[in-house]
Amino acid sequence: MDIIYSIDIIGTFAFAISGALVAMKKEFDVFGVIIIAFVTAVGGGMMRDVLINAHPINWIGDINYIWTILTAVVFTFLFRSKIAPLRRTMFLFDTIGISVFTLLGLQKGLNYDLHPFVALVMGMVSAVFGGVIRDVLTRKVPLIFKKEIYASACLSGGVVYLLLGYAEVHEDLQFITSALVIILIRTVAVVKEYELPKITKDLFTKAS
Amino acid sequence: MDIIYSIDIIGTFAFAISGALVAMKKEFDVFGVIIIAFVTAVGGGMMRDVLINAHPINWIGDINYIWTILTAVVFTFLFRSKIAPLRRTMFLFDTIGISVFTLLGLQKGLNYDLHPFVALVMGMVSAVFGGVIRDVLTRKVPLIFKKEIYASACLSGGVVYLLLGYAEVHEDLQFITSALVIILIRTVAVVKEYELPKITKDLFTKAS
Amino acid sequence: MDIIYSIDIIGTFAFAISGALVAMKKEFDVFGVIIIAFVTAVGGGMMRDVLINAHPINWIGDINYIWTILTAVVFTFLFRSKIAPLRRTMFLFDTIGISVFTLLGLQKGLNYDLHPFVALVMGMVSAVFGGVIRDVLTRKVPLIFKKEIYASACLSGGVVYLLLGYAEVHEDLQFITSALVIILIRTVAVVKEYELPKITKDLFTKAS
Repeated sequence: MDIIYSIDIIGTFAFAISGALVAMKKEFDVFGVIIIAFVTAVGGGMMRDVLINAHPINWIGDINYIWTILTAVVFTFLFRSKIAPLRRTMFLFDTIGISVFTLLGLQKGLNYDLHPFVALVMGMVSAVFGGVIRDVLTRKVPLIFKKEIYASACLSGGVVYLLLGYAEVHEDLQFITSALVIILIRTVAVVKEYELPKITKDLFTKAS
Repeated sequence: MDIIYSIDIIGTFAFAISGALVAMKKEFDVFGVIIIAFVTAVGGGMMRDVLINAHPINWIGDINYIWTILTAVVFTFLFRSKIAPLRRTMFLFDTIGISVFTLLGLQKGLNYDLHPFVALVMGMVSAVFGGVIRDVLTRKVPLIFKKEIYASACLSGGVVYLLLGYAEVHEDLQFITSALVIILIRTVAVVKEYELPKITKDLFTKAS
Repeated sequence: MDIIYSIDIIGTFAFAISGALVAMKKEFDVFGVIIIAFVTAVGGGMMRDVLINAHPINWIGDINYIWTILTAVVFTFLFRSKIAPLRRTMFLFDTIGISVFTLLGLQKGLNYDLHPFVALVMGMVSAVFGGVIRDVLTRKVPLIFKKEIYASACLSGGVVYLLLGYAEVHEDLQFITSALVIILIRTVAVVKEYELPKITKDLFTKAS
């Protein structure tokens, strides 16, 4: 699956840039920027592999992840003043990355004979956890908990992937359809600024 | 040990509710609430299993954890305005859960041939770490570091468990006695508002 | 390598003290102080061992770590008013510990047949991650991201270690030389207050 590997690397690249940008804004030194880029890009897959006991874990088994991340950090440093206008391109890369991370993580879970629901969680861990670690290390409340349709997009795409699997659809079609579901939901959500419902303060204060 | 499994599930349920409540107060969206409930409920056991290499780890090997947590989140959402008066019931569930988590974690450590002290630490990790992860993700200083007799209760119960084990007491009695020790210490401590001693600012400022 | 084991224990002791001091300043209770001392001292090696699947992990396989840490906590409590004047001694222990942690972690990575670059990362994880976990749990932005030449010293020493390894230098000489590189860089950096360059706010605001 050469195309998927390429997209995996592109997703890693995009995630590393997003981590590097956050760290630079926080005025971390060079080394701090690299660490944050690193955990953002491979943290989700690392967490998944540790939890399902898949050794060697992602970036240990394939040195290309490290190269990709270092390249992304240099790239971010050089073009930091030009990345702002590229926001749409970045969003596209990021969204494609998320969809691939979700589906690869889910499929890896199935390959390890996990219950489909656990595999679904693993897909989401792969896509989401890098950002969570990034936010914890830079002392932000993880963005995903507050106003991101992000996880719901991953969940929906993952469910579609599982259902198409049960329907024995050809696996290329299964992958592409599910990826498109994730990309579509996230794009529409961001464009229309949808958010998941939350228990509002008013509703909740009655309870507390 | 069917009763213990039931109590394990009840403890998971209680921990998930405590996590969901914290996340709702922070106005997390639905997905954030589920994640926080999840890590609070299974984070300790997950950490233990990863550290002692016990795969499949708790919630991967038994899908019931996921169902329990999802049920707890729905329950918390529906009855959030009624959980406040239930505070005592919640405290009871929570305390029972802690005692079971501690002893199951400790016993699992012994089963894996760990040094009794390391097994003791594993019991405490099982009981305590879910709350620590919850607090880190919601950006609070982990409660347990500041004013909780919580960990001391677990430690005392764990030590009793080990000693009764050496004394070759029947294992049901061993389990129940140790659990009661934990429940008693924590209940008395909360009722009487005991805290562990800390090095006060005054004492310490001399040093710094 | 008995000397190296001794230095490993001394490093663990120094790291535990540094963790205990931070936790005491934050007015954690006794148990909180122990936890922070513990994760500071063994967190890096624990992370490394989990990632490379080296079980039993450091403090599970060798009970001496727990004893060392408990001793360090008692020591810190007793002599907290006298540790300030000992700052230089502490810095020395800490720096020796870092150098040993880096090189032992790196060598362990090589023993596990990791790519040399991944092994280098593992050396740094071993030396650095305990402090990162300490800072996350005590709600500080990890120091290392902001103004520590710390990681660069580890990296430089690690590279020297790898190069001397390729040059087939005798392994005692290889170890000592690399350790001295780390100790020297860090000492000079702290004395002269070097910092790694960072992307300044001015430079960056153009981009954001």
